[in-house]
Amino acid sequence: MTDEPLTADRILDAAEEVLRRFGPSKTTVVDVARALDVSHGTIYRHFPNKAALRDAVAERWLARVSAPLEAIAAEKGPADDRLRRWLQALAWAKRRKVLDDPELFATYHALAEQARGVVDAHVEALIGQLARIIQDGMAAGIFTVTDARAAARAVFDATMRFHHPAHSAQWQDPGIDEAFEEVLQMVLAALAGRHPD
Amino acid sequence: MTDEPLTADRILDAAEEVLRRFGPSKTTVVDVARALDVSHGTIYRHFPNKAALRDAVAERWLARVSAPLEAIAAEKGPADDRLRRWLQALAWAKRRKVLDDPELFATYHALAEQARGVVDAHVEALIGQLARIIQDGMAAGIFTVTDARAAARAVFDATMRFHHPAHSAQWQDPGIDEAFEEVLQMVLAALAGRHPD
Repeated sequence: MTDEPLTADRILDAAEEVLRRFGPSKTTVVDVARALDVSHGTIYRHFPNKAALRDAVAERWLARVSAPLEAIAAEKGPADDRLRRWLQALAWAKRRKVLDDPELFATYHALAEQARGVVDAHVEALIGQLARIIQDGMAAGIFTVTDARAAARAVFDATMRFHHPAHSAQWQDPGIDEAFEEVLQMVLAALAGRHPD
Repeated sequence: MTDEPLTADRILDAAEEVLRRFGPSKTTVVDVARALDVSHGTIYRHFPNKAALRDAVAERWLARVSAPLEAIAAEKGPADDRLRRWLQALAWAKRRKVLDDPELFATYHALAEQARGVVDAHVEALIGQLARIIQDGMAAGIFTVTDARAAARAVFDATMRFHHPAHSAQWQDPGIDEAFEEVLQMVLAALAGRHPD
């Protein structure tokens, strides 16, 4: 037992380590408590049950994806440029996670499948960021769509091949960057109301 | 043993039945031969090995998806209307397969994952159909894109959420039809070079 106070963040660090070792289905709160050398009652003071701990781990993991994207959404530059960079950043962040540590990515993907509420909130947050960029483009007159939220949803759906983990096996295909660029051009053209470059 | 001649089609019928019962990983050529009451050597005269039989089953299954779409691609009506009907037909065919018999769909999905060459050829054929529709729209002046093949690829990728089996768990979500319509509008707008309706 260390003298450091047992914060929620330290519990999540330990839970990540244990998940990595045992996988989502075999990890128990007792395993996490053992890794921290505390009683499982101590964990339950921070997270009332295993599902709450699992959701908190998934939430922190997804926040690492959405935080840098939030920065792009909050910028003030041209909306088309920000939209492009936002979509690239999302696709590249996912791709880097898969390539850097495929096993950990698979673990988190399995975890996220169980934490549907957390994933749904994450997707809504991402679509909210996209909607703000599109709204800025509408205000500046470079996007001619009328419903920023609906357009954001469509942009998110239309680029799914490049950011949804179910397609990660194709993210190293030779044509993937070109395919992404084609879809991006299509999306930008539709938002602007002009033909694709 | 029946008196019917043993055609490739009858072997494929039997292979489908056996696959349905045992799943792709447990099905052997011997199982298929047993179901037909012939020796496995008889099967090998039509399909040189298990992979060839597996690929032929996958190919016939995928042909049932692409044949009705081919009919839409070959029509002569307005290209935007045909593009909409083609994409709807693809999405609905996949959705019907999942809802009618989820277990069989999962079996074929697993089978297709092993028959990558067959799946790639199927996707290329579908993109070829889309390209012909887009080409017609370009000739008629309603689509302003310049590269029909690249546009077809982008349309296929952008609608992946609605036809790729990896997303089948979401095909019964209440918002799915609206989401499809939004992406369809975006695609049509981009092809036409105007803002989405």
